[in-house]
Amino acid sequence: MPKIVDHRERREGIAHALWRVVEQQGWPRATMREVAREAGVSLGQLQHYFSSRTSMLTFAMEFAAEQTSSRVAHRLAGLDQPPHPRDVLRAVITEILPLHPDTRATSRMNAAYVLEALHDPELREVARAGLREGRDLVERLVRQAIADGQILADRDPAIETDLVLSLTGFTPLLELGVIEPRAALAAVDQHLDRLFSPTP
Amino acid sequence: MPKIVDHRERREGIAHALWRVVEQQGWPRATMREVAREAGVSLGQLQHYFSSRTSMLTFAMEFAAEQTSSRVAHRLAGLDQPPHPRDVLRAVITEILPLHPDTRATSRMNAAYVLEALHDPELREVARAGLREGRDLVERLVRQAIADGQILADRDPAIETDLVLSLTGFTPLLELGVIEPRAALAAVDQHLDRLFSPTP
Repeated sequence: MPKIVDHRERREGIAHALWRVVEQQGWPRATMREVAREAGVSLGQLQHYFSSRTSMLTFAMEFAAEQTSSRVAHRLAGLDQPPHPRDVLRAVITEILPLHPDTRATSRMNAAYVLEALHDPELREVARAGLREGRDLVERLVRQAIADGQILADRDPAIETDLVLSLTGFTPLLELGVIEPRAALAAVDQHLDRLFSPTP
Repeated sequence: MPKIVDHRERREGIAHALWRVVEQQGWPRATMREVAREAGVSLGQLQHYFSSRTSMLTFAMEFAAEQTSSRVAHRLAGLDQPPHPRDVLRAVITEILPLHPDTRATSRMNAAYVLEALHDPELREVARAGLREGRDLVERLVRQAIADGQILADRDPAIETDLVLSLTGFTPLLELGVIEPRAALAAVDQHLDRLFSPTP
């Protein structure tokens, strides 16, 4: 199905162009016109792939989430199998935080999307579903680790899940250079060490 | 100095109008023109108080930080004196998180400002200085609590400071309704209980 593949590839190329515009110029500059320019296509061609700014943003956001998942999978593939849940959680958090150029692009995209979603019901549903799916994944990992005795049984799985997710709160501190990547990683490791500690 | 007071009051009134525009319509709609409309002044009058969008945003951001500080001070005034550092940290975090309308307005303002700051060196310096000041305040509290034996001496003050700050990472989860305010507060309390725990 070469035509479908090509369609998908073109959409991904446009999503990459959108990320670059968001990363380098900021969200308000990410108009259809500016993204077309960055992608090296005409506005008409862009509109062939995305009928509206909303559909373009939603695709770019979902594609960013897929890219994050595939970076996590790539990291996990390099570990002993099956990977320890501590390593899985560490991979998820470090691939969400803006620690290197790829994650910085998806992180900025994500932050801008969440803000935009607050005022757009369609985007809000997509953003909410994505975040909820991420939270469910983390909660399943935490519950399984409790069942397997890797996390103490007296821990509350919902609270521990939320605390792991809150580690994404390093994002603005990293983006503005208030803390170094090394400090964020040390804090993530400290938190995970406590979560998987064999003593209360 | 009635004229200066009046000038300050007008600027604060405009800052409130800007917050409302950001909260209700989103950051890209927060133009000088739209803020003037919301504040009930002409564009010319607005420009008398703020010569540029950047100076308006910076003032609104600094005013938001002052409002957060004064909400924290108000909370602390209602506690036993001197307040326990755990209560101080809890007040700081809960007044930053979007848990009620006032904090939601300043939280959205803050998130939008950080994003805009990534592409504007002047805003970046203001945002960075504000965040660094907040981090320093938390670190002083953590170090004092270690010195006073309220936090165990083997804790790393820089890491504990960063972990407390990361609790602001509940913001997107709260904004999109993925977790309830009660769940965020339970997680904050769990984290602070562990930080001030008398056992390792």
